[in-house]
Amino acid sequence: MQLVVSSILLWRELRMPSSPKMTTEWRSVRLFPIPSIIYLVHNNVQFATLTYVDTSTYQIMGNLKIVTTGILFRLFLRRRLSMLQWMAIVLLAVGTTTSQVKGCGEALCDSLFAAPIQGYLLGVLSACLSALAGVYTEFLMKKNNDSLYWQNVQLYTFGAIFNMFRLLLDDFRGGFEKGPWWQRLFDGYNITTWMVVFNLGSTGLLVSWLMKYADNIIKVYSTSMAMLLTMVLSVYLFNFKPTLQLFLGIIICMMSLHMYFAPPGMLVDIPSTAKAAPDSLREVSVERRTDS
Amino acid sequence: MQLVVSSILLWRELRMPSSPKMTTEWRSVRLFPIPSIIYLVHNNVQFATLTYVDTSTYQIMGNLKIVTTGILFRLFLRRRLSMLQWMAIVLLAVGTTTSQVKGCGEALCDSLFAAPIQGYLLGVLSACLSALAGVYTEFLMKKNNDSLYWQNVQLYTFGAIFNMFRLLLDDFRGGFEKGPWWQRLFDGYNITTWMVVFNLGSTGLLVSWLMKYADNIIKVYSTSMAMLLTMVLSVYLFNFKPTLQLFLGIIICMMSLHMYFAPPGMLVDIPSTAKAAPDSLREVSVERRTDS
Repeated sequence: MQLVVSSILLWRELRMPSSPKMTTEWRSVRLFPIPSIIYLVHNNVQFATLTYVDTSTYQIMGNLKIVTTGILFRLFLRRRLSMLQWMAIVLLAVGTTTSQVKGCGEALCDSLFAAPIQGYLLGVLSACLSALAGVYTEFLMKKNNDSLYWQNVQLYTFGAIFNMFRLLLDDFRGGFEKGPWWQRLFDGYNITTWMVVFNLGSTGLLVSWLMKYADNIIKVYSTSMAMLLTMVLSVYLFNFKPTLQLFLGIIICMMSLHMYFAPPGMLVDIPSTAKAAPDSLREVSVERRTDS
Repeated sequence: MQLVVSSILLWRELRMPSSPKMTTEWRSVRLFPIPSIIYLVHNNVQFATLTYVDTSTYQIMGNLKIVTTGILFRLFLRRRLSMLQWMAIVLLAVGTTTSQVKGCGEALCDSLFAAPIQGYLLGVLSACLSALAGVYTEFLMKKNNDSLYWQNVQLYTFGAIFNMFRLLLDDFRGGFEKGPWWQRLFDGYNITTWMVVFNLGSTGLLVSWLMKYADNIIKVYSTSMAMLLTMVLSVYLFNFKPTLQLFLGIIICMMSLHMYFAPPGMLVDIPSTAKAAPDSLREVSVERRTDS
């Protein structure tokens, strides 16, 4: 779906008077299979992680991705962040984790610190790979001002090739008993399946856009806010019981958002428009802090 | 105990060559019974709150005191805070609350949002009164440079008078059946009782010192950190099971501490000492933000 949509959009761009910029030399194109390879490894690490830890621990560990994205964003893309922005990134991870803390009465209590060490190590590796894929994609999309759709076409062509290769491998292993994969590609599809395909496909296209015109940190904020919004909507739509930890998590994430994106001057300036203090209070109203 | 210790320290100061500053005019002295009156009302509101809500809801609502202290600190003492410091105060309250979130398997699950509205209103009133008492005491201690011990003697004398009056009232109501209160003052005291008296008495003296030489915000940070330290020590000393929410609460409070007290320049400056990016990355390493 992503390849088809991107191809159509690229084709429309090619018919315009100002033709889109497309770098076709091998030196550039050869970088585009790399995200597919990272995701291939990442998916396998995820399944390996789940053999060691339960799903709620897995979900909690997923928040680590926010911090690893910040670190790789700094190391790989050389984007410099202020200490306050680093603190905001850690708080975002803490906030999303807080909202996911199991409430009283929910099952599976003491499993969080009880998994074997391999589970936690694989969780950390998974967070690093996920961040690496995101940061590398941002690098790819921003390294030149090629058309976004041309970049997408390269990215998704390699992705499609890797997936087809995998399906073909399964066919060979199964001795083509059920026929080749392309004859069974849409077997069992119903309306829900199509909606999931449409949802994930659109998300992928929007993420490409984000990577080119915004950045990975904006993406982690968006996904975290979307998760919290989903939890709040679940309270109204599906009668989920709102928990104190969801409420606390939302406050923490809002603070983090403001810390990361608000202009620094707005955050640290001490308002000087306060009215003069009455005589009896003047002694204590001395500024505690001088602004830098 | 507080009155005895303060009197001894004042007496020692009076014997020194440079005699301590002591304002004895009624205009000043008459302000010292006010904290006792606020605490009298506050204690009664606390008991009223507990008739509506259970102890864990009561404990959670206690964190509201951090925010009300910040507000009264601003309104009454006219101390101006930056937006970052306001956010830090809210995060401190959120952090202490997070550490107290009931874990899975613990009793009394759905009681947090289930109490009658009066319980929550009294909880808010209680938080306001507690903050008012703290802020008013800071005002009293800082309004002139009188000796701390002279200020303490005034504060505790009125406190003692109010308490004696209350005990006498009980005696009258009981018709002096058990004799006057001073004959029964130390009845039932054992080593634990004395340790509690010593602990609370010392805390009170240290708080007076904090109010004179530091401020209410430093006090709320100290008490929050002490609470978290107690929870961590309980894990080692009493085999309490450490929870994820305790860990998250500690991170949030540490971030809040740093946001409130670190020099603003240190927080918002973007480091400029990073090495030059290689050619292929230069395009993306443009500063996202210009420092104000």
